[in-house]
Amino acid sequence: MARVSQAHLDARRRQILDGATRCFTRNGFHATSMQDVLKEADLSAGAVYRYFRSKEELIAAIAEETFVLIRGAFEAAAEQDPPPGPDLLISEVLGTILDVRAEEPGAGPRDFPRLMLQVWTETLRNEDLAALLRRGYEEISGAWVGLVESYRKAGMLPSDVPAEHIARTLIAAAQGYITQQALFGGIDPGMLRDGLRGLMSMGDGAPAHR
Amino acid sequence: MARVSQAHLDARRRQILDGATRCFTRNGFHATSMQDVLKEADLSAGAVYRYFRSKEELIAAIAEETFVLIRGAFEAAAEQDPPPGPDLLISEVLGTILDVRAEEPGAGPRDFPRLMLQVWTETLRNEDLAALLRRGYEEISGAWVGLVESYRKAGMLPSDVPAEHIARTLIAAAQGYITQQALFGGIDPGMLRDGLRGLMSMGDGAPAHR
Repeated sequence: MARVSQAHLDARRRQILDGATRCFTRNGFHATSMQDVLKEADLSAGAVYRYFRSKEELIAAIAEETFVLIRGAFEAAAEQDPPPGPDLLISEVLGTILDVRAEEPGAGPRDFPRLMLQVWTETLRNEDLAALLRRGYEEISGAWVGLVESYRKAGMLPSDVPAEHIARTLIAAAQGYITQQALFGGIDPGMLRDGLRGLMSMGDGAPAHR
Repeated sequence: MARVSQAHLDARRRQILDGATRCFTRNGFHATSMQDVLKEADLSAGAVYRYFRSKEELIAAIAEETFVLIRGAFEAAAEQDPPPGPDLLISEVLGTILDVRAEEPGAGPRDFPRLMLQVWTETLRNEDLAALLRRGYEEISGAWVGLVESYRKAGMLPSDVPAEHIARTLIAAAQGYITQQALFGGIDPGMLRDGLRGLMSMGDGAPAHR
C-alpha cells in the first residue's frame, strides 16, 4: 500500500511541475501566478499547496530536477572505462536532458533552454535559488573533475592545467549552448561535440605566442 | 564647432547609458522605470528622450555597445600573424570587456555579466532585441570563423570539423563564462584560458570510442 501511495504522490507532484513548466515557458516567471499553475495542472489550491507553497518553490524544484537529470547522465557515462572524451560526453548529456524535456506534449526544443535562462536570471535576485544553483554547479564540476582525472590516468590529457579549470570550461560550453539554443534555436548538440573535437585537435602549444 | 557638438552629444548619450546601466544592474529591467533613469543620470526627461524613447531602446543600445566592444577586441587580435590561439584570444577579449565595464565608479566585477544575463532573458520576449542579438552573434561568429581559417592555414588546426561549429563552441564558452561570473562570481578569464588549453591538448582521437 505504501508504495502505491508514494507512486500517487509522485505522479501528482509531476503533474504540478509539468503544469508550472508549461506556464513559465509560455509567459515567464513574472507573469505567472500560482493561480495560473493550478489551472494549468487542473488541480485545487489545496492539492497544489500541499506540495509547493510558492512560485519560488516550484522554480527551485525545476532547477533541482535538472541537476538530478544531469547527474544521472554523468553517472551512466562514468561507468565506461576509459570514459568517453569530453566532446562525446557533453553532447550526450545535453542530448539526454533536452530529449527528456521535449517529451512533454506540445513542448518545443527551445522550451527547456528558455526556462533555464529564466532560472539563471531569477537567481540574480533570489538567494535560496543562488545557493541551490551553486550546490548543483559544484556537483557537476566534481563529476567533471573526476572524469578529467580519468582522462589523465588514461593518458588522454597531456596538459597539467588544473582539472577544475577544464571542468569550468566544459560547463561553460554547455551553458553557452543552452543560451544559444534559447536565443536562436536550431542548434544540435552535435555542433558542440564537433566544435570541441576541433579545439581538442589544436594542441596546447602554438609556438609564436606562448 | 561641429566636432565639439558631436563630442557633447556623445558625452550626454554616455551619461544616460551609464545611468541606465547602474539602474538595471541594481534593480533589474522590470523594476526600473524611465523616471529612475532620468534621476540616476541627473537629466531632464527632454534631455533623455531626445536620445532614447523607451527602456527597450536603452537595453538595445547597451547590447549594441557590447557588440562594438567585442568587435574592437577581435580586430585588435586579428592584426597579429599568426593569430593568438583561441585560449589566449577568448580570455583577452573577455578581460577587455569586463575591464571596460568595471571602470565605471562603484561598478563590481559581476555587474556586467549580470546585465548580460538579463539582456538574454529579455530577448526571449522582445523580437527587436532578438534580431539585434542574432546580428551580433553572426558578426562575432564570422570573426571567429575567419580566425579558425587562419589557424588552419598556419597549420594549428588539424581537424576538418566545420569552422562554424568551432566558432559556436568558443562563443558558447564565453557565454557560459559570463553566466558563471554572473551567478557565482570570482572567476578570472585565465581559468577559461587554461581550461581551453587543457582541452586543446587532448587530441581529437581517443581510440576506444571513435
